[in-house]
Amino acid sequence: MTKVTKPEISNAGLGFSKSVIGFDETGKQRQLELVGERALTLYVDKQEIVTLMTMGTHPELLTLGYLKNQGFFDSIDEIKIVQVDWETEAVAVVTKKQTSDFSKQMEQRTVTTGCGQGTVFGRLMDKLKDIKVPELVIKQETIYGLLDSLRSHNEVYKKAGAVHGCALCTGSKIDFFVEDVGRHNAVDSIAGYMWLNNISGDDKTFYTTGRLTSEMVIKVSQMGIPILLSRSGATQMGLDMAKQSGVTLISRAKGKHFMVLNGVENIEFDS
Amino acid sequence: MTKVTKPEISNAGLGFSKSVIGFDETGKQRQLELVGERALTLYVDKQEIVTLMTMGTHPELLTLGYLKNQGFFDSIDEIKIVQVDWETEAVAVVTKKQTSDFSKQMEQRTVTTGCGQGTVFGRLMDKLKDIKVPELVIKQETIYGLLDSLRSHNEVYKKAGAVHGCALCTGSKIDFFVEDVGRHNAVDSIAGYMWLNNISGDDKTFYTTGRLTSEMVIKVSQMGIPILLSRSGATQMGLDMAKQSGVTLISRAKGKHFMVLNGVENIEFDS
Repeated sequence: MTKVTKPEISNAGLGFSKSVIGFDETGKQRQLELVGERALTLYVDKQEIVTLMTMGTHPELLTLGYLKNQGFFDSIDEIKIVQVDWETEAVAVVTKKQTSDFSKQMEQRTVTTGCGQGTVFGRLMDKLKDIKVPELVIKQETIYGLLDSLRSHNEVYKKAGAVHGCALCTGSKIDFFVEDVGRHNAVDSIAGYMWLNNISGDDKTFYTTGRLTSEMVIKVSQMGIPILLSRSGATQMGLDMAKQSGVTLISRAKGKHFMVLNGVENIEFDS
Repeated sequence: MTKVTKPEISNAGLGFSKSVIGFDETGKQRQLELVGERALTLYVDKQEIVTLMTMGTHPELLTLGYLKNQGFFDSIDEIKIVQVDWETEAVAVVTKKQTSDFSKQMEQRTVTTGCGQGTVFGRLMDKLKDIKVPELVIKQETIYGLLDSLRSHNEVYKKAGAVHGCALCTGSKIDFFVEDVGRHNAVDSIAGYMWLNNISGDDKTFYTTGRLTSEMVIKVSQMGIPILLSRSGATQMGLDMAKQSGVTLISRAKGKHFMVLNGVENIEFDS
């Protein structure tokens, strides 16, 4: 067995906001913070793949997670370099083969793009059929502890708004927290973090400020994470997907409230 | 000059929510409403274009607006029929030519897909360079009147959450209001409504519950609407785009508060 080697990645994360002047309802000038939003075009072996709009705090992880979640690679071992250059608004991914042909993937992507006009959907939907996440029991007090821990995060949101946050958690501990202008980017960045660091989803809980749509549930299922927790509500298809893959789905988690939509048998009500 | 004829469209709008049983934090069963989320695959002259995830309240308008905003057609006169069939989760668009070749558009789309992993971006960005929206002055009391009128809408949100609402307004009057699981769908449905009914954006204000990202501002500029109002915040690039096309950008509009980020000279502070 060959040892898996991690790709070399750049470290081009950006700060997240900038002061601008606005006028409030009295006509008075006010200084406020706006989040950044940058175009980042992904090239793999010089082939243009996609342009993402991102805050840019974790562009390398976003790139890796995007490529993984879209099914471009089976193993991170295939990737040699991930190099972000904001001057050209580009990220160059170099594979070990140095010549990849993704025309097949690109073609499929074209016709299956979807999910709120989001990302590849057809293929993800097919893949979900084979995915069952492991069982994981969570205590009510752990949920409350996790919501407490999250309060100190959501920095950008508190400062500038207009972002979505996602967190990878073990029990009530937050392992990794990402905010971005699009919730799919935030999820993909966490997928990139897990992929790069070879982290299994088995004992994890995934938190998102965003809504529990089909695509969110599919991605979290793909990441093998048993519990998905959101501050927001769910859609019917989000719930259907959770039933299919066995994800415990908890919506409207805020303060001391939450609503379990799937997997209530995995919640220990103890508070 | 030939007379523009409207396409024949089906009338397959769906109801928006369904009751399900959840469990609250005390472990008690609670009935709640979840919004629908359906896959809808667009075919133009039997060519598969894209799969959108939608609540499905205005599938024909969504289809028209999507095709218009993506630049598939110059005139609505080119379209003969828009027929939605939920059994097959498909919408068939038939053009007058009955044979269209969109391989060029599809190819471009593949590499420029973007904006929070959203929709065509490269081409939109290029197009924006030529767009200047007309000037329109709005009184502060009109803004307050509009926010008042909106209170009676946002039905689905109030009932089930997990949706974004958009409204096309003349002064403080709401002409058309759409909610959907993705804010891009809601915007596209309004674009479809304007296109189908040959409505100019000149004297309109556009309201969205969603964030003022680059893509939102680009679409509203494309629709020729001078004022864009949101309950949420903006991104830097959203503001940059507004400066470029001349859109008056008002964020954080709620109750008696708002924040003008661009075009303060178009606001009459009178309250």
